[in-house]
Amino acid sequence: MATQSTEVGTPRLAASRIGNDIGLLLAKLHAAGSVLNNRALADFGLRERSFSVLTLACSGLEPTQRELADFLSLDPSQVVSLVDDLERRGLVERTQGKQDRRAKIITSTAEGRKMHTKARSALDACEHEQLSALTTAEADQLRALLRKALWGAGA
Amino acid sequence: MATQSTEVGTPRLAASRIGNDIGLLLAKLHAAGSVLNNRALADFGLRERSFSVLTLACSGLEPTQRELADFLSLDPSQVVSLVDDLERRGLVERTQGKQDRRAKIITSTAEGRKMHTKARSALDACEHEQLSALTTAEADQLRALLRKALWGAGA
Repeated sequence: MATQSTEVGTPRLAASRIGNDIGLLLAKLHAAGSVLNNRALADFGLRERSFSVLTLACSGLEPTQRELADFLSLDPSQVVSLVDDLERRGLVERTQGKQDRRAKIITSTAEGRKMHTKARSALDACEHEQLSALTTAEADQLRALLRKALWGAGA
Repeated sequence: MATQSTEVGTPRLAASRIGNDIGLLLAKLHAAGSVLNNRALADFGLRERSFSVLTLACSGLEPTQRELADFLSLDPSQVVSLVDDLERRGLVERTQGKQDRRAKIITSTAEGRKMHTKARSALDACEHEQLSALTTAEADQLRALLRKALWGAGA
């Protein structure tokens, strides 16, 4: 569980070699962002994971539960319970796939799309706050490098 | 819990807007790295978190448990249990602070430093593998942007 940090500016320990470890830097920046995001999403009864499922259901890409699990690095059972919760609230639906009619795809309802638009705008503000030390060009560069590290040059 | 992804190349869902969300990109790259790191560290009876405590104990910076918790974004109780475990194995020691004699600082033993050197070299190989899609200059740029996002221009 991430705790609120008492750090101001660069902490003393950042001078150690681990202050350059990509793994630690990714974990810290992600943890700091999650605190902001989950606080903002609480207004909508969502958390980061349920928002991710909702946003993919709104994407028009017709994801299956298996694809959601892969893409969000979650266990399939976690995805089932996130979709259950969103379905119960009338924000998403399980429907028959158009390409593969045996597959269940997850799509959003009109209510889900309305909720998504509002939550997305709150999250954009969080991302802006989280990256306030970077210029817009640097934030774009960070995004491009993360995509390239994950998915290669074509990403 | 991170699951082994079945993705090859850029997944279809990366085309959605969430495929550009810094939060999701950080989470995914961190999850992918953690799988590699924890697999490599298992050979030494360590995991990412215990390795982080060990490396800071080896840094010469004489961290307190409170500083470790802040820096590693962990609860103080988690740090106590990580230090307990490393101390039991003879890798670190709790000693009296030099500046503040009431504070307990965490330092490494000779055995701990030997273990750290071996584990560090395994982790360097993991980081290299994790960032294999990036050039060395791009990996350095990613590191610098993550540090700046976390700690500002002076980092």
